[in-house]
Amino acid sequence: MYKLVLMRHGESQWNLENRFTGWTDVDLTETGRAQAKAAGELLKANGYEFDLAFCSVLKRAIRTLWIALDAMDAMHTPVGLSWRLNERHYGALQGLNKAETAAKFGDEQVLIWRRAYAIAPDPIAEDDERHPRFDKRYAKVPADQLPATECLKDTVARVLPFWEDSIAPAIRSGRKVLVAAHGNSLRALIKHLDSISDDDIVHLNIPTGQPLVYELDESLKPIRHYYLGDPAEIEAALAAVAAQGKAKA
Amino acid sequence: MYKLVLMRHGESQWNLENRFTGWTDVDLTETGRAQAKAAGELLKANGYEFDLAFCSVLKRAIRTLWIALDAMDAMHTPVGLSWRLNERHYGALQGLNKAETAAKFGDEQVLIWRRAYAIAPDPIAEDDERHPRFDKRYAKVPADQLPATECLKDTVARVLPFWEDSIAPAIRSGRKVLVAAHGNSLRALIKHLDSISDDDIVHLNIPTGQPLVYELDESLKPIRHYYLGDPAEIEAALAAVAAQGKAKA
Repeated sequence: MYKLVLMRHGESQWNLENRFTGWTDVDLTETGRAQAKAAGELLKANGYEFDLAFCSVLKRAIRTLWIALDAMDAMHTPVGLSWRLNERHYGALQGLNKAETAAKFGDEQVLIWRRAYAIAPDPIAEDDERHPRFDKRYAKVPADQLPATECLKDTVARVLPFWEDSIAPAIRSGRKVLVAAHGNSLRALIKHLDSISDDDIVHLNIPTGQPLVYELDESLKPIRHYYLGDPAEIEAALAAVAAQGKAKA
Repeated sequence: MYKLVLMRHGESQWNLENRFTGWTDVDLTETGRAQAKAAGELLKANGYEFDLAFCSVLKRAIRTLWIALDAMDAMHTPVGLSWRLNERHYGALQGLNKAETAAKFGDEQVLIWRRAYAIAPDPIAEDDERHPRFDKRYAKVPADQLPATECLKDTVARVLPFWEDSIAPAIRSGRKVLVAAHGNSLRALIKHLDSISDDDIVHLNIPTGQPLVYELDESLKPIRHYYLGDPAEIEAALAAVAAQGKAKA
């Protein structure tokens, strides 16, 4: 039996400001840093050790990983970074305040943009300086693979090759793996692991900064999964995530 | 022409306490963290960007690298970690206060242990819990390659394969490389690059937390090298390093 640990980054500045973040490289808040530290301490207290970590190339996930590894006294853990673990690209919505967008277009449209499996927001313009093709960290990604917007289906399509080519082989080779990533890239992974339908995946929420343990059988099919943290805390964190994107007073 | 940047970690707790550190995994002091941040800011101000960083598996070097990459807004830089970039293993001297050791054995003996090219201190005992074979991060290193003590010659012998197999090929492939490591692993690398004699390498000092730029020709022969920082600061830092290991009042 294998164990895989997934961890969504701690609270970011734009989580706090209720803005669509996507590939924007915003940092953690102090709360987010504290969540990452608590996650590392929790993993350590429960005897977790990792041979390898995977992470997106966005700093809110990297910093979450760094802080957690530091708290585990395991800064020497090798880290494989990939753009394929990035958050879903939110296209033209990136930077907009979710509550304002909801007030303008209605909760339902925002929920569609955030959660409909196959409907993407308008793309970011090709000449917009925020387009990933202007960011050097994506210089080696083929232009036709770089997203300017994504629906969750698109995110699944670019996350899965990294699962197949990098994460799954590492687990099969017996290495204990930690994945630090984002709400939607983890949702994409979990959809695949648990064979969740296109409709049901919309309702799956993942709390920030909470280690989620998957026990996998020989063929990497999940046997069970659970959060390491206190159930009441997880419940509260999930409620907070579910409330995002609703118009606020 | 290629550019390679070398960086010795910032001041560590045991640098401050004047103790032989070697493979002991001590952390940076606040001064060391500030040095790392200043190094990152200096690299950024001078327009340096890196495609790849290499680092030892000791946290004082890793933290120096993390802080510098953070200051450069380049946390997404891939990092290759290797035990071959670790500090020289100081054997039975590890943990001893350098000034006390000097007072006991004389400055000359300490200088021999610290700097004679081919004379190693007594090894750490096989059953000493501080022996690297008990540390999981070295679990995949063949037992006969794990040092229990080293002279600089030994350090050179284990650093060079990593240069040949990993760092040099990365530079030749056109990637811009940063190496974060230790006084003696960097000395080993520089001895090789600049073809410094066994006698002369003893007198080469490297200041902590100061980016050292090597410009290399097509065959990776150095054309010239220089510190990026303020010359007066480098001078002061070098004097501080040279004074280590002398008996203090």
